[in-house]
Amino acid sequence: MSGGLDSAVTLAAACAEFGPARVAAITFDYGQRHRVELAAAARVARAAGIDPARHVTLRIDLRAIGGSALTADIDVPKDRLAHADPPPAGAHEIPVTYVPARNLIFLSCAAALAETIGADRIDIGANAVDYSGYPDCRGPFLRAFEAAANAGTKAGAEDGRTLRVHAPLLRLSKVEIIRLGARLGVDFSLTTSCYDPRVDNDRALACGRCDSCVIRARAFAAAGIADPTAYDHAGRSTRA
Amino acid sequence: MSGGLDSAVTLAAACAEFGPARVAAITFDYGQRHRVELAAAARVARAAGIDPARHVTLRIDLRAIGGSALTADIDVPKDRLAHADPPPAGAHEIPVTYVPARNLIFLSCAAALAETIGADRIDIGANAVDYSGYPDCRGPFLRAFEAAANAGTKAGAEDGRTLRVHAPLLRLSKVEIIRLGARLGVDFSLTTSCYDPRVDNDRALACGRCDSCVIRARAFAAAGIADPTAYDHAGRSTRA
Repeated sequence: MSGGLDSAVTLAAACAEFGPARVAAITFDYGQRHRVELAAAARVARAAGIDPARHVTLRIDLRAIGGSALTADIDVPKDRLAHADPPPAGAHEIPVTYVPARNLIFLSCAAALAETIGADRIDIGANAVDYSGYPDCRGPFLRAFEAAANAGTKAGAEDGRTLRVHAPLLRLSKVEIIRLGARLGVDFSLTTSCYDPRVDNDRALACGRCDSCVIRARAFAAAGIADPTAYDHAGRSTRA
Repeated sequence: MSGGLDSAVTLAAACAEFGPARVAAITFDYGQRHRVELAAAARVARAAGIDPARHVTLRIDLRAIGGSALTADIDVPKDRLAHADPPPAGAHEIPVTYVPARNLIFLSCAAALAETIGADRIDIGANAVDYSGYPDCRGPFLRAFEAAANAGTKAGAEDGRTLRVHAPLLRLSKVEIIRLGARLGVDFSLTTSCYDPRVDNDRALACGRCDSCVIRARAFAAAGIADPTAYDHAGRSTRA
């Protein structure tokens, strides 16, 4: 649960299905530049009715591994998607904001938590539709992970319980995700999607220019839902 | 690379195969009670000829997840194996020292490092023979993980590189592991295996009584190799 739009909608869907008392959440403090998302995640989980004692924040310093603009001193690309629709050549390539094996690591930790608390499903807001072609957001990976987790945990290998990985957003467009969230009552103003926000009093002001901002803003417009994102207007004006 | 006997032998085998300049090592600071193994890991890696800049220590606080005697305030069992050979009923069950999904998490992080540095093999000292039947130390899990890592990383999914998981100790007994390590020139006095050591000046004094100590001591005896382990004689005397 990142504090972003996708995981907020995924959490809301799980709470609608099971009730928030039967849902736990896990958030990763992994050395991301956009650490303000941790505060957003806490706000989103509380709004969904998750007991704060069942919202685990796991610290894992992926900066020690390196390799991504999201954790290292590599510039987050901007204005790549802003002026082109359909996406420009190259936009389907894996971007520098890809963190090596991030969902593999995050799902592994979620599997450990699931085993510890006796949960039998991991819900993840992975999405294979938007422009960012991360390999660890695709169905074949999620199925392969499920098999590995079941082979490698006591619950799966010994107790005959099966851990499932559920990705309700996998085949939805961003517009569909926003519409689903709106139906589920998600307060999108609590979420943050920007890869490179300016932080003001523990609140994220979105740059409006990174891939993630551009995809999000377009989707609100296409869904016909008012975009509640707090933008960094000082930052945006430099684009004009 | 834990600083234990198995990973020291695994590292030595990789260095013998490729030369230490082509090997990187990753060690996990995961909130283990036996943190002194981090110092042991550094000593073992240096002795193997690994450039300290290529020995990554990743902090991941698995105490936030809980569920194991190795990270939580659960007593490490002692004297379970000391007086029985073959092992007593129940010794094949998964013990409380099992950390949920630990190798799944560790291998995922190793896969991230492998992708970042362009490595195509992860070597792990997993062993399916000794008495501790951890599901994430078995061949089927390692194969399933390999498939997940290849589906979920840029290297596997896009670049056509294949990441392999190599577990050279998987089917060796502890006696065979010690004999292999001796042939490879491993200095076992640098390693630490105890789940509950007493620390004296950054050095581990082994309790001699936990499953890990008992398995190790027996194996040195059976291999006919002098056991260089520094035991906590004060602690051992309480057993008599």
